[in-house]
Amino acid sequence: MAEAAARRRGRGGGGAARRAERTAIRIETAKYIERNIPNFEILTEEALEIIETNAETVLEEIGVNFVNNPGALALWRDAGADVEGERVRIPRGLARKLCETAPSSYVQHARNPDKNVVIGGKTLVCAPVYGPPFVRDAAGGRRYATMEDFRNFVKLGYMSKYLHHSGGTVCEPTDVPVNKRHMDMLLAHMTLSDKPFMGSVTEPSRAQDSVEMCEILFGKDFVQDNTVMTSLININSPMTFDDVMMGALEVYARNNQACIVSPFIVGGAMAPVSVAGTLTQVLAEVLAGIAYSQLVRPGAPVIFGAFVTSIDMNSGAPTFGTPEASQILYGAGQLARRLNLPFRSGGGLCGSKLPDAQAAYETAHTLNAALLGGVNFMLHACGWLEGGLVSSYEKFVMDADQLGVLHKMAEGVPVDVNAQALDAIAEVGPGGHYLGCAHTQANFKTAFWRTELLDYKPFETWEEEGARDTQALASARVAHLLNSYQQPALDPGIAQALQEYVERKKASMPDAFM
Amino acid sequence: MAEAAARRRGRGGGGAARRAERTAIRIETAKYIERNIPNFEILTEEALEIIETNAETVLEEIGVNFVNNPGALALWRDAGADVEGERVRIPRGLARKLCETAPSSYVQHARNPDKNVVIGGKTLVCAPVYGPPFVRDAAGGRRYATMEDFRNFVKLGYMSKYLHHSGGTVCEPTDVPVNKRHMDMLLAHMTLSDKPFMGSVTEPSRAQDSVEMCEILFGKDFVQDNTVMTSLININSPMTFDDVMMGALEVYARNNQACIVSPFIVGGAMAPVSVAGTLTQVLAEVLAGIAYSQLVRPGAPVIFGAFVTSIDMNSGAPTFGTPEASQILYGAGQLARRLNLPFRSGGGLCGSKLPDAQAAYETAHTLNAALLGGVNFMLHACGWLEGGLVSSYEKFVMDADQLGVLHKMAEGVPVDVNAQALDAIAEVGPGGHYLGCAHTQANFKTAFWRTELLDYKPFETWEEEGARDTQALASARVAHLLNSYQQPALDPGIAQALQEYVERKKASMPDAFM
Repeated sequence: MAEAAARRRGRGGGGAARRAERTAIRIETAKYIERNIPNFEILTEEALEIIETNAETVLEEIGVNFVNNPGALALWRDAGADVEGERVRIPRGLARKLCETAPSSYVQHARNPDKNVVIGGKTLVCAPVYGPPFVRDAAGGRRYATMEDFRNFVKLGYMSKYLHHSGGTVCEPTDVPVNKRHMDMLLAHMTLSDKPFMGSVTEPSRAQDSVEMCEILFGKDFVQDNTVMTSLININSPMTFDDVMMGALEVYARNNQACIVSPFIVGGAMAPVSVAGTLTQVLAEVLAGIAYSQLVRPGAPVIFGAFVTSIDMNSGAPTFGTPEASQILYGAGQLARRLNLPFRSGGGLCGSKLPDAQAAYETAHTLNAALLGGVNFMLHACGWLEGGLVSSYEKFVMDADQLGVLHKMAEGVPVDVNAQALDAIAEVGPGGHYLGCAHTQANFKTAFWRTELLDYKPFETWEEEGARDTQALASARVAHLLNSYQQPALDPGIAQALQEYVERKKASMPDAFM
Repeated sequence: MAEAAARRRGRGGGGAARRAERTAIRIETAKYIERNIPNFEILTEEALEIIETNAETVLEEIGVNFVNNPGALALWRDAGADVEGERVRIPRGLARKLCETAPSSYVQHARNPDKNVVIGGKTLVCAPVYGPPFVRDAAGGRRYATMEDFRNFVKLGYMSKYLHHSGGTVCEPTDVPVNKRHMDMLLAHMTLSDKPFMGSVTEPSRAQDSVEMCEILFGKDFVQDNTVMTSLININSPMTFDDVMMGALEVYARNNQACIVSPFIVGGAMAPVSVAGTLTQVLAEVLAGIAYSQLVRPGAPVIFGAFVTSIDMNSGAPTFGTPEASQILYGAGQLARRLNLPFRSGGGLCGSKLPDAQAAYETAHTLNAALLGGVNFMLHACGWLEGGLVSSYEKFVMDADQLGVLHKMAEGVPVDVNAQALDAIAEVGPGGHYLGCAHTQANFKTAFWRTELLDYKPFETWEEEGARDTQALASARVAHLLNSYQQPALDPGIAQALQEYVERKKASMPDAFM
């Protein structure tokens, strides 16, 4: 880390960078969560063994499809799988064996080394919403997302204390051609924030562009030796690995960059309607996907992903924050830990159209499950609305505030002499009160988590100030954060090189909007 | 149960009751929750032992006050405590020993035996909000609660599938004299609902009235042999047991009726600012209170209560749904289970003024903690708003819907052959979909929990229908439930006797409003 920082300072324009650093507002970012609490384990040992046995049966007898990808089929054949057309049947135990070379945790480096994150073990790293084509705010309503929105969300993420990661497609900038927007998105993450980020996965060539832009930002050698991106590789459930996603995974794995290998499942549609059946399929898919990543490059960092929700059998709509989704999250966490792999699931998921009570109920259910279920990387931790169709400005800051609750919960319960507070109980005695006692005075500043958003005011004050609901408070906070945003310092030489790369590359290809 | 039903049918007016039963709409009430999932245990064995040792130290060295209660002091003295003035110091181990006669679980009988509840062990019984002087709805805003509001909330509770218990003071009917309102409240629970309910605790004489009304409803012998009320006895934290609350507890214990013995703590004001210190005080208080109940009548049913929240050190306001409150809930649950006692905590607690996102985040945190923390009796499970100052019509039905999430979560994850769904995975195969497969067709009706309130509609439909937020949907549901309410059948002779008791008793005393 020190080495990386020194290298970056050494690469041109150091004086300007130092001057910029001196004038910058210091933005506080909490360290990623390290749990000092146990995981909640919903499945018994017997249930886990049944699911693991069945997942191996699925891989051996049914198999998975690697579509339009002769290279993958060759790798599988060489590894001992039974390949028939695009169908790959994996002998019992082989996929699990191949997964053993994947690291149990890894460091993702940020350009600001203070914001490096460890993903795996007892950590929880929070990243914002990913993928919505729409945005919403109270003033402007729901509309297609633009590059300006994208930059705003990156800025909000940079300013959010409890968000450890800048994420990836915080919204789809639909005003930029689809074959060029990945570069504008990466440029925004690299220049408007100093937190770690994700690479493009929509084409293998765009994954390659992502690697090349990281080589400019971090230095070429540094990227080959270190993980500087964690990117999202979705499996086409059930049990289909398409060439676009696998092509991106191949680029990242070869470059030692991390991938989340993640079934994307609406239970009842892309997986069985039962929790145990869905977990079986999730495990089979992840085993196949991660095994493949290790065939491409043994030791490549990967995350066991599980994006699972259920379906409303009346309307066919996907639903979020449901009890079945929580059960699957808890179960998938156990399965991931038994593979000794980092685990991705959860997020501020909801189906509501507005940042209202429904949104918050559903979000809180999922956030709690993610914390207690041992999630290591939580995409969609803030800003997700309407089943992922919308990035909500207000919900972004609402959820980001709630992530503070998770940080405090994860600290667990200290029982040192100060925490025992026996002196305070003796000092105050029956019928007294603790507000003025020595122990309270010494500890009150750090004793309780405190919101930066929600309303704790007396009723009369709240009414005088306009009787604002959470959305109204959040609108005000969004405006405040965007108005007070200051860009983090970046070596001007690097900034210029990134800009030139993007301009040259964009000029070299026609616009495409599909 | 059959015996009780037979007795009630035998007591006059059976024909009329049967006629009434034939015309009544059947209201569905879910059975109380029986957990098929583990508890979340946040405290280590070492931490538990430290807290237990310290609580005994508090009882032995500092002691508790029994105020204005010579009878209690005499009982304590006889039991071996060191009594000095009103201070009772309890030798190490004595309180815990006395608690051993309290049952680990008990049945609370309802007048409809199908709605009896078991409180203790792996069960969770949900009861509505208790105590607010105000009500709020979207149309009428915030206002003082009246007896009409009270009746409305009892009706809503009766109609709520996932609410097992009618509760007690669902709001304070401020338009009825304070010395008479307990009878109107009990009459409402007894006649407008057939679910179990709570008795009055505001004066020992009112507890006695509650017992007498139950003797009319259930029969005198039945009440002596069975528990038909669970009532809320708050401790004046820190460590003070006042004569009013203890007087009510004495009445209930002598009559074999259940009490929740519950510290009411705003952490930082009535207990130390630390979680471990607060748990120490909670345990000391509950040990003293439950031990006292067992001195009054060994074997009297009691619940280990813990109503604990924290304080906003900036404004002094109590805060809800905070991580510290969840940690205390989890820890208190562990302490209660080590005493082999039923546990009360949790609820739909929040500080928000409106049924908005803040209310829902805070509520969901507490509901999740209550489910995973092993709560057996959850007061305030629905309708709580503004730190308990307000009973909210909309939030009542919003929270009541969320209780369905807890029911489904608690079922755990079946792994029988049907749940394993291997046939479905084989039938569908890579790239297929599950919507039409045999397993989905056979299971979809019961596979997923489904809201009766929240929005799962496509965006366009939702917009056409008025783009309603959760509060607006809840307002509509409140109106629908109250409009379709039908009173459950009750033997007319009993109804008349209850009415006459209340009228006679009210006529015998002057109005009092304090």
